[in-house]
Amino acid sequence: MTKFSFSLHNTDGAARTGVIDTPRGQIRTPAFMPVGTAATVKAMMPESVAATGADILLGNTYHLMLRPTAERIDRLGGLHRFMNWSKPILTDSGGFQVMSLADLRKLTEHGVTFKSHIDGSKHEITPERSMEIQRLLGSDIVMCFDECPALPASDAAVAESMRLSMRWAQRSRDAFGDRPGHALFGIMQGGVTPELREESAEALTRIGFDGYAIGGLAVGEGQAAMFGVLDYAPGFLPVDKPRYLMGVGKPDDIVGAVKRGVDMMDCVLPSRSGRTGQAWTRRGQINIKNARHADDPRPLDEDCTCPACRNYSRAYLHHVFRSNEMISGMLLTWHNLHYFQQIMGEMRAAIAAGTFDAWEEQFHAMRALGDIEPL
Amino acid sequence: MTKFSFSLHNTDGAARTGVIDTPRGQIRTPAFMPVGTAATVKAMMPESVAATGADILLGNTYHLMLRPTAERIDRLGGLHRFMNWSKPILTDSGGFQVMSLADLRKLTEHGVTFKSHIDGSKHEITPERSMEIQRLLGSDIVMCFDECPALPASDAAVAESMRLSMRWAQRSRDAFGDRPGHALFGIMQGGVTPELREESAEALTRIGFDGYAIGGLAVGEGQAAMFGVLDYAPGFLPVDKPRYLMGVGKPDDIVGAVKRGVDMMDCVLPSRSGRTGQAWTRRGQINIKNARHADDPRPLDEDCTCPACRNYSRAYLHHVFRSNEMISGMLLTWHNLHYFQQIMGEMRAAIAAGTFDAWEEQFHAMRALGDIEPL
Ligand SMILES: [Zn+2]
Ligand SMILES: [Zn+2]
Repeated sequence: MTKFSFSLHNTDGAARTGVIDTPRGQIRTPAFMPVGTAATVKAMMPESVAATGADILLGNTYHLMLRPTAERIDRLGGLHRFMNWSKPILTDSGGFQVMSLADLRKLTEHGVTFKSHIDGSKHEITPERSMEIQRLLGSDIVMCFDECPALPASDAAVAESMRLSMRWAQRSRDAFGDRPGHALFGIMQGGVTPELREESAEALTRIGFDGYAIGGLAVGEGQAAMFGVLDYAPGFLPVDKPRYLMGVGKPDDIVGAVKRGVDMMDCVLPSRSGRTGQAWTRRGQINIKNARHADDPRPLDEDCTCPACRNYSRAYLHHVFRSNEMISGMLLTWHNLHYFQQIMGEMRAAIAAGTFDAWEEQFHAMRALGDIEPL
Repeated sequence: MTKFSFSLHNTDGAARTGVIDTPRGQIRTPAFMPVGTAATVKAMMPESVAATGADILLGNTYHLMLRPTAERIDRLGGLHRFMNWSKPILTDSGGFQVMSLADLRKLTEHGVTFKSHIDGSKHEITPERSMEIQRLLGSDIVMCFDECPALPASDAAVAESMRLSMRWAQRSRDAFGDRPGHALFGIMQGGVTPELREESAEALTRIGFDGYAIGGLAVGEGQAAMFGVLDYAPGFLPVDKPRYLMGVGKPDDIVGAVKRGVDMMDCVLPSRSGRTGQAWTRRGQINIKNARHADDPRPLDEDCTCPACRNYSRAYLHHVFRSNEMISGMLLTWHNLHYFQQIMGEMRAAIAAGTFDAWEEQFHAMRALGDIEPL
């Protein structure tokens, strides 16, 4: 069986491109992972997600443990089979979403107890339980159970939370055990304080993981603060392991993260904004419900090769959005996921060619143009 | 250019199979037409509708004239291009849906005035305006503008309404003009009264149409009453023209109609019930939200070759329905449309082979078995 491994192929400044090998296939990095919260990338068939160029998707432990439950998915043959996705899946640890979605959370050294936001039932997640759930799901890349402090928080609170997460990282590592072909990623915490980030990175590398996430960002701190941390934090992590920035982001966040040495990202943005009538193109953002599109025979982006752009006018997309037709979310999500994967592919090629800076300049220049003029 | 024509290939009892040739492709009869009300078959990509075996779909004049409007669709190159469907489209006349959906309807000899159920705007449809709208949409098979009386109604009211529809049929014919490659269908009315049905059929055949619909059925009269009319009404119509039963129906309605000589049908049922968690299989109806499916690894129908049955368990379909995920409606609609087309294909083959009665017996025997036993 193929083991989990990462090969770094090229660097260009801090930006990196490479390949993660897994028994379920290769993940080209930098990689964008669409989010399949409840065992589906909303509004998409999995074949269509793959057609956009996604090599891996993310599943949410918190949602799946509550419904349909990890035990049920295990009985049904695992998450890949359940949701008809044969390529790699990364699952989060459940920690972040317990904090943002669940009711009556209670945090102790042992773990977190909470009530389900769906039916009020009581649950507990500990590092050990998180490892068990992610094993039952059949996840290829398992995330350590961590705690992400609510912001704003004092340095002392951030430090205390980070150190708890590092103890949980050790417990996660111990509970994960030896699972050939499956990877466990540690999660760096430490807020916007370099010393805490470095302490966290040292704690994680001492334990040893197959990859390292940069946690505690993309939680409302703003792009400048996030890039500020990314200017130094990836440098604390081993060069030869993948680096994953959780919950990022908008296209310009993604580009800035790749520029700073991030290899993997995930975000609900392309699918969520597709369902609310927002399309992302190389010329920025389009609100398809705007009346200017009602008679516009042109596609969202004439250079885009996705089905929404090849086969439909803005006028059609406007009409079906206004009419609350499901195909609106289906087509806009497809376009958005296609566009996000297109950026990733272009960045991988630019890094390999050593032309990332020129590519980035062009990326920003196109966005500065704004959308095409109304007819 | 191919002209519109109908070739009757085989009959078996009253059941018929043949082909309608149009410039946009062949329609194998008996044909089931999925409904694309607002320029989309809900929850489906048009490629997927075609993959189920549909040769033609139906568009709703009433909905499209209100939003995005027929004039806009015309400016954008017609309905086929607008909705990315290159095969034939039949449009209804708008008459039936004005009666069932619009507000403040006022009926005169001239036509119908009403207020839009979407925004309250005032509109008029006359036979001439209906022909104009359907021409602007680019419809391949245009329906005469008719009136369908609300039931229950006296014989006198049904007769009066039918005669109005016959005068409108003449005005529709006159307004339609000569449009090579496009067809105009007349609509027989007359309720459940054989004499009125015969009078209506004679009026229509005197005018002369490319096909004939049997109107005023599937409006709540029940299957026995509908079959009662179908036992004689098709016989009043020319043998060499297609016969279209509007708004039918459930699988057993469809089979009974084909047995009685109907060539074309349409219904929202497969797509509408797909979105509410209902699946139709050869063994009857399945309510996927029922808890019995939560742990069931089996497909809806192990003999079905649709993507929902090939790639997903009942447990998955149950989960995504309960989680309000769009893929639930997408997969169940696909299965239902696939199943409806499968029945049509089987009936066409059985009629060609002269084995329709045996096929029908088997169809009912399978349904009588009911769904597979719970595990
Ligand atoms: Zn596109
Ligand atoms: Zn099926």
